[in-house]
Amino acid sequence: MITFETSPAEYHHWKLTTEGPVATLAMDVQEDETLAGGYKLKLNSYDLGVDIELADAVQRLRFEHPEVKVVVITSLKPRIFCAGANIYMLSSSAHPTKVNFCKFTNETRCAIEDASRNSGQHFVAALNGTASGGGYELAIACDEIYLVDDGKAAVSLPEVPLLGVLPGTGGLTRLVDKRKVRRDRADVFATLAEGLRAKRAKEWGLIDDYFPTSKFQEAVAARLGQLVETTRPRNERQGIKLSPLEVEVTADRREYRSVSLRLNREKRYADLIVRGPEPGLPTDPAEIQKLGDAYWPLRAYRELDDALLHLRINEPEIGLACLRTEGDIATVLSVDETLAAHRDHWLIRETLLHMARVLRRLDLTAKSFFAVIEPGSCFAGNLLELALAADRTYMLNDPQAKTEIATSNLNAGALPMSNGLTRLQSRFLAHPEKAVEVVAHQGSFDTGTADEAGLITAAPDALDWDDEIRVAIEERASLSPDALTGMEASLRFAGPETLDTKIFGRLTAWQNWIFQRPNAVGENGALTNYGKPTQPKFDYRRT
Amino acid sequence: MITFETSPAEYHHWKLTTEGPVATLAMDVQEDETLAGGYKLKLNSYDLGVDIELADAVQRLRFEHPEVKVVVITSLKPRIFCAGANIYMLSSSAHPTKVNFCKFTNETRCAIEDASRNSGQHFVAALNGTASGGGYELAIACDEIYLVDDGKAAVSLPEVPLLGVLPGTGGLTRLVDKRKVRRDRADVFATLAEGLRAKRAKEWGLIDDYFPTSKFQEAVAARLGQLVETTRPRNERQGIKLSPLEVEVTADRREYRSVSLRLNREKRYADLIVRGPEPGLPTDPAEIQKLGDAYWPLRAYRELDDALLHLRINEPEIGLACLRTEGDIATVLSVDETLAAHRDHWLIRETLLHMARVLRRLDLTAKSFFAVIEPGSCFAGNLLELALAADRTYMLNDPQAKTEIATSNLNAGALPMSNGLTRLQSRFLAHPEKAVEVVAHQGSFDTGTADEAGLITAAPDALDWDDEIRVAIEERASLSPDALTGMEASLRFAGPETLDTKIFGRLTAWQNWIFQRPNAVGENGALTNYGKPTQPKFDYRRT
Repeated sequence: MITFETSPAEYHHWKLTTEGPVATLAMDVQEDETLAGGYKLKLNSYDLGVDIELADAVQRLRFEHPEVKVVVITSLKPRIFCAGANIYMLSSSAHPTKVNFCKFTNETRCAIEDASRNSGQHFVAALNGTASGGGYELAIACDEIYLVDDGKAAVSLPEVPLLGVLPGTGGLTRLVDKRKVRRDRADVFATLAEGLRAKRAKEWGLIDDYFPTSKFQEAVAARLGQLVETTRPRNERQGIKLSPLEVEVTADRREYRSVSLRLNREKRYADLIVRGPEPGLPTDPAEIQKLGDAYWPLRAYRELDDALLHLRINEPEIGLACLRTEGDIATVLSVDETLAAHRDHWLIRETLLHMARVLRRLDLTAKSFFAVIEPGSCFAGNLLELALAADRTYMLNDPQAKTEIATSNLNAGALPMSNGLTRLQSRFLAHPEKAVEVVAHQGSFDTGTADEAGLITAAPDALDWDDEIRVAIEERASLSPDALTGMEASLRFAGPETLDTKIFGRLTAWQNWIFQRPNAVGENGALTNYGKPTQPKFDYRRT
Repeated sequence: MITFETSPAEYHHWKLTTEGPVATLAMDVQEDETLAGGYKLKLNSYDLGVDIELADAVQRLRFEHPEVKVVVITSLKPRIFCAGANIYMLSSSAHPTKVNFCKFTNETRCAIEDASRNSGQHFVAALNGTASGGGYELAIACDEIYLVDDGKAAVSLPEVPLLGVLPGTGGLTRLVDKRKVRRDRADVFATLAEGLRAKRAKEWGLIDDYFPTSKFQEAVAARLGQLVETTRPRNERQGIKLSPLEVEVTADRREYRSVSLRLNREKRYADLIVRGPEPGLPTDPAEIQKLGDAYWPLRAYRELDDALLHLRINEPEIGLACLRTEGDIATVLSVDETLAAHRDHWLIRETLLHMARVLRRLDLTAKSFFAVIEPGSCFAGNLLELALAADRTYMLNDPQAKTEIATSNLNAGALPMSNGLTRLQSRFLAHPEKAVEVVAHQGSFDTGTADEAGLITAAPDALDWDDEIRVAIEERASLSPDALTGMEASLRFAGPETLDTKIFGRLTAWQNWIFQRPNAVGENGALTNYGKPTQPKFDYRRT
C-alpha cells in the first residue's frame, strides 16, 4: 500500500529550507529509496515516492510558511538538475500504475502553478545542471527558469525520440500554451534527444536566462532578491502546523475524524462519507488560526484528499464511490459564512484554495461518483460541491423524512473546477442564469424544489429508493472501466478549456493511448528496449 | 485501395433530391454494398463507404445547389433512422482502420456544421425511427432534431454499455458542449443501452420535438416551410458542377492537374507538391463561375483534399510528407486578391470555405509535415498556409538563388484552423502583433527576412541544404509513429479550444486508447463479444 502522508523530517529526496521570504526546495534523490524494486533512482530521476514528497512540500509551504514569497527549486547533485521520471520504473510498471503516477505528478505541477497564481508564492527553477524530460517539465511548471551555462547543461524533452512516448507531465502543453514557444520550434525541441543548451534555449523561450557556472548562484540569488523586494512583506503571517491525519485502518475501512471510506470490494464500490462540522466553530480568523489544522474545513478536506488518493492508487478495482454526507446543514452553512466573510485572511484563503484543489482532485479521479442524498445528510454549500461533482445525484423523495440540500456563496466561485467554471456553471451551461438563481435561493431545497431547480438527477420515492440505488450501483460497476473513464472525462468538463483541462483531458488521453501501444510497451517497443543493447522496432503504420 | 470520389448517380446508400430551397438526403443503406467483407450493413448501419457518400453529398449541396437553404436528413427504412457505425465492421477492423474511419466521419459531421454556420444551409434531422449510436451522432451534428413518436422510436448512445467504447463521432462532446445537456443527464443517457424515447428525450434536450407517426411528415414539412420562409431567397444562385478529378495513378505516384503525390515507401515519406495557378485567371465572379470547378483554387484544393485522404487511408506506412509548391508568387497573390475582393459572392465564399476545410484536414492528418521552400516555389498567400500548417519549415538560404515567400490578406482570417485562430495567430501566440505585421508586410520575404519574421524553422545554406533535408526526413521517419501523432496533436493546436478541437484532440485520444484496450478488443472484450452468445469479461482496474 502506498501512503501519501509525509513531512519534511521524513523526506528522503528533498531538502526544504526557508530563510525569511525565500524557501529552497532542493532535490537530492536517494537512488535506493524507491517505492518498488527493480530500479535505481539515478541522476535525480524520480518515482511516485519522490513526487509525494514534492507535493507535501508545496502544500506545507502554503500553510506552514505563508511568509514565503519565493520558492527556488534546485538540485543538490552536481551538474544535474533532474533526469525526469525513472524509465526503468516506467517500463516495469503496469499500465494503471503509469497512468496514476502521471496523474499525480501532473496534479503536483498544477499545485505549484496554483500556489503561484493564487497564493503569491513565486516559483523559480534554478537549473544547476541538465533538466531532461520530467526534469524540464518540473522547471516549466515554475514561473521562471534559469540554466547554468557550463558548456554541457541542457534542457530537453527526449521522450518522443528516445522512449516513443510523450512527455507525461504537461511538457508539450506548457511549451506552446504557457510559454507560447513557436510550434515549429517546440517540434524540433521535443524530437531532439539531447535537447538545447543555454543560448538557443533562451532564444527559443525555453528558459528565461542563463549564467556561467561561476556566476550562477550569485545571479539566481540576485533575482530572488529582486522578487522579494518587489512584493509586499508577509512577515506578519504566522504559519500553522499540518499534523499527521488521524485514521483508523481496517481491511475494508479507513475511518478518519470527518471522513470514512468503506469498501465493498466484491461489488467494486465504496461509500465515501464526509461528516459535517461540529457546531460552535469559531468565526474569528485569530481563533481559527489557533485551531490550526483541527479546523473542520481544513481537516475534513485533507482527509478527503487522502481518501481519494488511496482509492485511486491502492484500490484500482473499485469503480464507483457513493458520496454521502452526515451532519447539520445549518452548521455547514455557518462555516461557509465564516470562510466567505474572511477570505482575505491568508489562512482562510489557503483553506478555501485547498478545498478547491481537493474537489478538483475528485473531478479528475477516474472513478464514477454517485451522490446519495438522504435524511441526515448535509449537502450544503461547500459539501454541495460533492453532489455537483458527482456523475449523478440521487435524492430521496419522501414527504415523511426531511431531505434537504442548500447552497451558499461558496458555490458561486470560491471552488472552481479545472475549466475555470464553478460546478454550477458547468451544470447549467445551457441556462447560465440558473447558476445565479440557485445561489440566491433563500433557504434550503427539499427534494421537489431541488429537482425543479435541476440540482439532482433522480428522486426515487421511499418505496423504490433502496432498489433504485442498488441497481444503479450494480449497473455502473458492471460497465467497461475504460469506457467509463473516457466518458466521464468527456462529460465532466464541458465549456471552456484551460491549461489544466488540456493536460488532464487531451495530453493524458494521448499518453494513455501511447502507453498501451506495442511501439512503446511491446517486446520491440521503445520503452521496453530503453537502456538495452537491442533497438526498438516499430510498426510504422500511422494512426 | 479506397477511393473518395463519388457522385449522386453512383451512390449506393443515399438519395439526394432537391426541390427548390429544400434538399432531402435520405439514407437507405444497402446491406451488401460494403467496403470490405465479413459484415452486412443492416438497419442503416454504416461503414466508411456510406460516409464517403454522405461527405460528397454535403459538399455538392454547397457547390451544386447553392439555392438550397434547408437540408433534411432522414431514412427510407421503416422505423429505423440509422443504427450507427456497423459493429462487426469495427470489431473486424485493425486499429488504424478504426481510427481513420472515426476521423473521417468526424470531419463529415464537422463539415455539416460548417455548412450550417458558414453557408446558411440549415440541417434538420428527421428521425422517422430509432437513431442509435452514430445514428444519433449524425442527428446531433444537425441544427434541429425531430423524432417520430411511434411508441418505440428512441435516441441512444449505447456504445459505453454495449460495446465498452465511446461514441466515436463526437456524441459526448456535442451532448454537453453543443446541446448543453446537463452532465448528469448525459451520464444517464450515455450509459442506457436502450436510450430514451420521445418525451424524455425532448425534456432532456436530446431532441427538439417529437410528433406521432401520423403527423410526422406533415409536422417536419411545416418546420421546413418555416425555415425556408424566414430566410432570404437564393434563387439567383446558379450552382456549378463538381466533375471527377483528373488523376494519373502509377505504383508510387498520383499526378493530378495541380497536385502531385510522390511516394518513397522505402523511406516512408512522400512529396506532396502543389502547383500554383496558371496566369491570366479571371478576376470577375461571373467569369469564374463559368470556369466552375476548373478554377484553380477549387481544383487545386479538391485535388489536395483527395491526396490527403489517399495518404491517410491507403498509405498508412508513410509517416512524413514534404510539402512543396511550384509556381509564381505574383500569380498566387493575384488569385488571392480576387478571392478576397469577391468573398461576398457565394461561389468565391464557398471556394474559400472549401480551401479552409482542406487545410484543416491537413492540420488533422496524423502524418508529419515538413514544408520545403526552394527557388521556384510559391508559398504565398493561401499556399503559405501549407508552410504554416507544417510541423517545420525549411527555407533555402542562398543569395545566388532567389527564394521567397509572401503573405496575402487570406492569411488574416479566411482560412481558420479548427481552434478558430489563423495559422499565423497560432504560430505567434506569444506575440499576437506579429501575426498582424507579417500580413501587412509589403512585398515578399526572402530567407533572411522570413527567418527574422519568425516564419520559418530553419534556413540551411546551399552547401548544407541537401544533407540537412535528407537527415531531417530520415530522423523523422525513424521515430515512433504513435508518439509523433500524440506530439503533433498537442503542438499543432495551442490556444483556444472549440467543439472541433475537443472532438479531434480529446475525444479521439480517449477513443484511440479505449480502442486498444483488451476490455474492448481483447478476447473477452465487449467489442469482440458483441452479438455473440459469450459475455465480455472485464479487467476492472480503473485507470
